[in-house]
Amino acid sequence: MSDIETQQMGLVARLLETWPHLPSEDRLQTFRNLATDDSEDFFLALGPRDHAGLFNDFNRAERRLWLRFLAPDDAADLIQELPETLRQEALGLIDEKVRREIIALLSYREDEAGGLMSPRFVRVRPDMLVAEAIRYIRQQALIVEQIFYVYVLDSNQRLLGVMSLRQLFVHAAEKRVSDVMEDKVVSIPDEMDQEQVGRIFQQHRFIALPVVDKDGRMQGIVTVDDILDVNQEEATEDIQKMGGQEALDAPYPEVTLPEMVKKRGGWLMLLFIGAIFTTNAMNHFEDVMKQAIVLTLFIPLILSSGGNAGSQATTLIIRSLALREIRLSDWWKVLKREVLTGVALGGLLATIGFLRIAIGGALDDKKVFTDHYLLVGVCVAASLVGVVLVGSVLGAMLPFILRKLRLDPASASAPFVSTLVDITGLVIYFSIARFILTGTLL
Amino acid sequence: MSDIETQQMGLVARLLETWPHLPSEDRLQTFRNLATDDSEDFFLALGPRDHAGLFNDFNRAERRLWLRFLAPDDAADLIQELPETLRQEALGLIDEKVRREIIALLSYREDEAGGLMSPRFVRVRPDMLVAEAIRYIRQQALIVEQIFYVYVLDSNQRLLGVMSLRQLFVHAAEKRVSDVMEDKVVSIPDEMDQEQVGRIFQQHRFIALPVVDKDGRMQGIVTVDDILDVNQEEATEDIQKMGGQEALDAPYPEVTLPEMVKKRGGWLMLLFIGAIFTTNAMNHFEDVMKQAIVLTLFIPLILSSGGNAGSQATTLIIRSLALREIRLSDWWKVLKREVLTGVALGGLLATIGFLRIAIGGALDDKKVFTDHYLLVGVCVAASLVGVVLVGSVLGAMLPFILRKLRLDPASASAPFVSTLVDITGLVIYFSIARFILTGTLL
Repeated sequence: MSDIETQQMGLVARLLETWPHLPSEDRLQTFRNLATDDSEDFFLALGPRDHAGLFNDFNRAERRLWLRFLAPDDAADLIQELPETLRQEALGLIDEKVRREIIALLSYREDEAGGLMSPRFVRVRPDMLVAEAIRYIRQQALIVEQIFYVYVLDSNQRLLGVMSLRQLFVHAAEKRVSDVMEDKVVSIPDEMDQEQVGRIFQQHRFIALPVVDKDGRMQGIVTVDDILDVNQEEATEDIQKMGGQEALDAPYPEVTLPEMVKKRGGWLMLLFIGAIFTTNAMNHFEDVMKQAIVLTLFIPLILSSGGNAGSQATTLIIRSLALREIRLSDWWKVLKREVLTGVALGGLLATIGFLRIAIGGALDDKKVFTDHYLLVGVCVAASLVGVVLVGSVLGAMLPFILRKLRLDPASASAPFVSTLVDITGLVIYFSIARFILTGTLL
Repeated sequence: MSDIETQQMGLVARLLETWPHLPSEDRLQTFRNLATDDSEDFFLALGPRDHAGLFNDFNRAERRLWLRFLAPDDAADLIQELPETLRQEALGLIDEKVRREIIALLSYREDEAGGLMSPRFVRVRPDMLVAEAIRYIRQQALIVEQIFYVYVLDSNQRLLGVMSLRQLFVHAAEKRVSDVMEDKVVSIPDEMDQEQVGRIFQQHRFIALPVVDKDGRMQGIVTVDDILDVNQEEATEDIQKMGGQEALDAPYPEVTLPEMVKKRGGWLMLLFIGAIFTTNAMNHFEDVMKQAIVLTLFIPLILSSGGNAGSQATTLIIRSLALREIRLSDWWKVLKREVLTGVALGGLLATIGFLRIAIGGALDDKKVFTDHYLLVGVCVAASLVGVVLVGSVLGAMLPFILRKLRLDPASASAPFVSTLVDITGLVIYFSIARFILTGTLL
């Protein structure tokens, strides 16, 4: 980042950039050194994990002050991050009314709509006049963080309609709220999974959406800034899984060594056990290798090409499924596409591979490539087409299969696909070699 | 998605879900069949690519109607997606005043702050009274899409302060705007890259930010819903690059076969040419293989383990760098961490691998594993530790090196790392074998 931008961003922004890299024992003092205004801005911008970290180090007076400073949904997130033993104490620092709000929020899972929502929103009654509604909103403005939309509720808290402040503003003061409100309201159930909530925001470009319980009673609002975090989390999880491991669920620098080994070791061992079948495949073709050791030279080259093609296909399809660009029922279209792509890509590599062997063989004095180097070239080229084709198709189909089995398509990691391709690739290569070279090298 | 949710989401939401899967020739008719209200909601929810698709199929009257229906920033995005030949015609359909706004927006690149912003925002003067300001905002509410914040500008359009409607509401009517506004304004330069804009939104949880030109004159606002798209695009690009290819820049189903081959073939050929060095490495150790063909059996197993460890490390570090959890200067900390992780993970695999060979060797009648099977097991185990260690370290360091060279760290794809590990892995394996087995098998 250039200096100009850093300057423009101000003290708080700069501190936010460096905060994750500050040793945790220096954080409290750094925070205490901020001017009141800055410390407020800064504290609001921190996430729940950092809130909880500071809370842990605060003295009792600070704990009380800063916990009450947060909106109830942020306070609930902070409390959720605290160790069990501190939670009761934290709840005890808050006034009865807000405590009830927070306890209600804590009953939701972190990853569902209810766990994301703020319980504070602006509400009006349908029979109010526009002028009355505006006055009423002015009173509520004192306790509500931000006014995105005004929600129209009946006496049972059931959601009847919605409008923006802007819409209220442009209507005549003597009209009724029920006549000017939008009554086709998109709302989300309080138990909807956050990933789906994120998708609805992404599709509709809403700033905030009302959350309702099973009986249609409005419980709160989810705002788009929460969705930024949700989408980032979900993308991080997918990326980490696509690397062939479990999602870390915490920033890399904060994961302890034993946890890291656990998150990575599980998949690594599973893939290793799968890859043991490559030794069986090799063993099965030992006679071929003994007679024509030149063939072994190309094993890593061929297998890695298949794995690379598979890695490309699987990342494309996993992301495309996640973005809903393609659906489960599109598997056939994707298969046809990948067959064509695989043949084209395999053909490219086969050409380079064949040329390499033909030129290498022609210039070769030591006869490493044997007299039959052109036949070896044909074997390698044909295997490359086969293995890239198999890689593309397996890589593309595996996410569909996982989705169909109700597993996470992102588990179709590059390493998973490579291992599958390694086993099939060896069989393809040696079968082709046996077919082409029997009578000459074999 | 369950039926209940689909129902609750309504016609427009359902159509948005199926739209990408409708054959393009059916889209226009489907759109025309919508009731006016629904078609408006639906059209607003579409992205620029789909806007342009419909625009292309519309008759002249529809083109005029729907282009004028969009806010200037969305209209500019639509026009940017049109083929060159249609752009002038599209601009001709719009009124002079809006056309000027759109032409100004078109002068920005799509991926900078100016290309994301809307030129319409609510402005007041610093010397207005709060009551005056509220009246003035009511007038502007007719042409402004949404009121997030109210911006205080001087007569040269320079940005002096900001406040939310809520803040205006809670202050007494007779106060001056300049006394109640927040004068420490975070603003973004019009040429800031969208990725950085996204990061600022993510950090500060803003709903909208003002965009200013070099002279500090306010040009428009970027809102958080645009950032959802930006972040999604950036994550998609990273994911695709991490799969070992160029970013597609379009949804998978819309990429033509030649384009697909181009985006994937470039890296695939590059990696293939790199992987040709594995044949050289193998060739270099041909004597070892000839004397102990049993060693070749484990080549795919060992190389894939190194590649998998590398894939894990590289995805973790690429994502962590993208999220700013770690910085370039943290490379040393990461290196130490990955050395420990690599040794631990390598140790796990080495144990499984050794046991497999020891048990296989003890039970082996055909003596495939030779009489020295325990020594072979030691070779394989030691190589596994070495190769997983090298994979973890290379995978973790490559993104740092690319960032340092001002290249995209996401290019440190799983395939790229695997190829590097393949070459070093072979050298490690055969060197260890030569060291341990000379005098017995060799």
